Amino acid sequence: MTNSKTDSKAPNKLPTKEDYSEWYHELLIQAEIVDNRYPVKGMCVWFPFGFAVRKNVYSIIRELLDVDHQETQFPLLIPENEFMKEAQHIKGFENEVYWVTSGGTAPLDVKLALRPTSETAIYPMFKLWIRSHADLPLRIYQIVNTFRYETKHTRPLIRLREITSFKEAHTAHATWEEAAEQVEVAIERYSEFYRRLAIPFLVSRRPVWDKFPGADYTTAIDVIMPDGRTLQVGTAHHLGSTFAKTYEITYEAEDGEQKLISQTCYGISERCIAALISVHGDDKGLVLPWGVAPVQVVIVPILLGDKELVLEVCRSLQQKLREAGIRVQLDTSDERPGAKFYKWEMKGVPIRLEVGPRDIQKGVVTMARRDGLKKAVPTESLVEFLFGEAGDIQAALYSRAEQFRDSRVMGVSSIEEAKAQTEGGVALVPWCGSEECGHQLEDKVDANMLGEPQYVSFAEAACVVCGKVTGKRTYMARQY
Amino acid sequence: MTNSKTDSKAPNKLPTKEDYSEWYHELLIQAEIVDNRYPVKGMCVWFPFGFAVRKNVYSIIRELLDVDHQETQFPLLIPENEFMKEAQHIKGFENEVYWVTSGGTAPLDVKLALRPTSETAIYPMFKLWIRSHADLPLRIYQIVNTFRYETKHTRPLIRLREITSFKEAHTAHATWEEAAEQVEVAIERYSEFYRRLAIPFLVSRRPVWDKFPGADYTTAIDVIMPDGRTLQVGTAHHLGSTFAKTYEITYEAEDGEQKLISQTCYGISERCIAALISVHGDDKGLVLPWGVAPVQVVIVPILLGDKELVLEVCRSLQQKLREAGIRVQLDTSDERPGAKFYKWEMKGVPIRLEVGPRDIQKGVVTMARRDGLKKAVPTESLVEFLFGEAGDIQAALYSRAEQFRDSRVMGVSSIEEAKAQTEGGVALVPWCGSEECGHQLEDKVDANMLGEPQYVSFAEAACVVCGKVTGKRTYMARQY
Repeated sequence: MTNSKTDSKAPNKLPTKEDYSEWYHELLIQAEIVDNRYPVKGMCVWFPFGFAVRKNVYSIIRELLDVDHQETQFPLLIPENEFMKEAQHIKGFENEVYWVTSGGTAPLDVKLALRPTSETAIYPMFKLWIRSHADLPLRIYQIVNTFRYETKHTRPLIRLREITSFKEAHTAHATWEEAAEQVEVAIERYSEFYRRLAIPFLVSRRPVWDKFPGADYTTAIDVIMPDGRTLQVGTAHHLGSTFAKTYEITYEAEDGEQKLISQTCYGISERCIAALISVHGDDKGLVLPWGVAPVQVVIVPILLGDKELVLEVCRSLQQKLREAGIRVQLDTSDERPGAKFYKWEMKGVPIRLEVGPRDIQKGVVTMARRDGLKKAVPTESLVEFLFGEAGDIQAALYSRAEQFRDSRVMGVSSIEEAKAQTEGGVALVPWCGSEECGHQLEDKVDANMLGEPQYVSFAEAACVVCGKVTGKRTYMARQY
Repeated sequence: MTNSKTDSKAPNKLPTKEDYSEWYHELLIQAEIVDNRYPVKGMCVWFPFGFAVRKNVYSIIRELLDVDHQETQFPLLIPENEFMKEAQHIKGFENEVYWVTSGGTAPLDVKLALRPTSETAIYPMFKLWIRSHADLPLRIYQIVNTFRYETKHTRPLIRLREITSFKEAHTAHATWEEAAEQVEVAIERYSEFYRRLAIPFLVSRRPVWDKFPGADYTTAIDVIMPDGRTLQVGTAHHLGSTFAKTYEITYEAEDGEQKLISQTCYGISERCIAALISVHGDDKGLVLPWGVAPVQVVIVPILLGDKELVLEVCRSLQQKLREAGIRVQLDTSDERPGAKFYKWEMKGVPIRLEVGPRDIQKGVVTMARRDGLKKAVPTESLVEFLFGEAGDIQAALYSRAEQFRDSRVMGVSSIEEAKAQTEGGVALVPWCGSEECGHQLEDKVDANMLGEPQYVSFAEAACVVCGKVTGKRTYMARQY
């Protein structure tokens, strides 16, 4: 499938990554991730290649959760009466909900909400499923489409009206403390997930005014995008017993008493793929980590001299790599090698192998890594060599991304410094923790408070608003 | 998770399969396939166990299609103007469409349809994607939720308002003939799919008045359910250039001319799982083919004598089977062996292994197949033995199901015979092929015409309506 009828002459040149927003939009089309030309704003089509990336990325999430979670699926449509039961929750979502009001040619008796998230679909069933302490903990998840009527500017994979790939986990526990532990487990799993994608991140406890509607608290994972703004790519919420009260979800404790359950929920959406593309990509296109690349190795035959021999060697190489479990493609299309290099670089293939008559004569293949490193490798030891490279590529990707992240986070000690730093990065700001100072901070710095960094501690410093000495900090940034 | 708060005393006994409808509904809950208690009629929740079955079943579909199809995903919501473009198509669906009419608290400018099927979402994109003959054939598919506002009686997995697992493939070709070949390919793939599920089926060409809205013709796959009614479990449609005209989808042929594409589409829904459950299940519960059983082998320790030794042997057995790639579960719950047998029979586990002190002494394990066959197997050769049994079980399942199907299809030579036969099965009826006789047949027999059997030929006989001599037949049945 060719990209589009619009580029019928030559493909548009990819803008440089410095023009991040332009680059991102153009790359999604040229690398065939998603097609933004669907005739409803904020809804995209997954191209086959993009869908293959998505599949590999989500198989990591599944692998990490399947250890002790069970995958399920709940209906998309939520009856108005169930949806409206939990007051704080409605307040957080009512401006964003799509409503189905008619079926066939007649109006519905009860309006149906397209889930913006599934608490109100799942918890009435939890009430039926949970009877006793033996049913706890209960940990389920689903990967589904959800809908939010976004009034802000939409962006493919980042701010969508149809989120096609919402992984939401919901857990039920006997005590508040166990639920709190589960929030930590969720953050650990998500951390591992992003490490596998070679994406460094920040973890923080969201300020109370920015927690999930209905939650006791929210811990979030943010990634710093190329322009220094942050993207929230994962959240874990301690729900306490708020929903348990509303939906009357109780269990019989060992002592025979009926008690309310404690709950958590945590989610990741296709924003993880937006981060993947944005963090690693470069001026030539996508750069994909080995583990999620739909094509890990592409073989480009250099058809000089005995062409049939070259093709034969390429085919046997392809076979050998395939048997070793490598996702390999042999590009036998009519294009010239240069055009093939360009195409596969755009698609982020980690390793390209070039095979020509001179390579064959020398018993080598020419390997070119997506990051530019090039060398001749003896054909004999190719498979082991490639697995070695896979590890090196992952480490190099992570290290480069980590350097970028670290270069964009800076401690500040005044509102002015915070303002300057959040122009193109994340400020680490001494903050006494009071709501009043927090709101003032957001107003004066003109950026969002991501919240307190987790798993780290800081020296004492003066709150940049009230001057009170504190060991607390908050991240501040402009957020997507 | 326990089944439900309602069965807090003892689980309801499963009705016998003779009461098919009762049996089916109760089995779905007791075997934890889907939960029908979600508060919207016709929408169900997949239990984790049911979801695991679904995952295994759909991985077969993916395997069969991924050979030459690409998986994609298109938005759920279709703008009214796109949806309304193809007149025949609208006519077929307008009474079944759910409409989203508001976002947040305001009405939408353009109403959005919840896809009942995705032609009108996909084909505007095909127009953008297809430019030249080099882009053809194009074969994509998606597995998504679709919606139909059913006014008939709903049934879990069979007649739903949210179809959660609609696999729809859409292909584009240069010529009508190539599209016709693709319909045959689709039917072949589906046939292989149902063979893997050990489900025998009927293939027929639907009569013109029952083809897909907008299609040139429709070929369908039906399964005979335990009560003799048929369930349509797969369809393949030749769309000709109907949609290509509407959505102006053309390609540049090799001679430079712009031509309309020819199209097909074909679908399978979770009805395949309804068929799986209904065809194979028995009075004790599910019976799952080896290939799709979430648990292929369950090990039940018989805890007599040296309990620790028994558990140790069980654990090492579990490890051995797991290493061989078998989905195995060791049931160490507190229940008595009898209760465990009951539970795992309900879940359709193909093979149960019992390990007690006497088995250990003799160097054997006691194997009990879900179909009742029981024997002692030397522990040494267990793995090879199990793989052998897996094949035998599959063959036995298929053969039993085939006998049932064959016993429920009968040639008839009058309207009265057709009427009698369709009370509890499928009638094979001589029919001249005229629309007029067809409608009369449906009226008089009071059953549906499935259409002409494919890939078979018949001796000449008199059309049961007009008496004209014909080699044609049609299947007739009461349909779900």
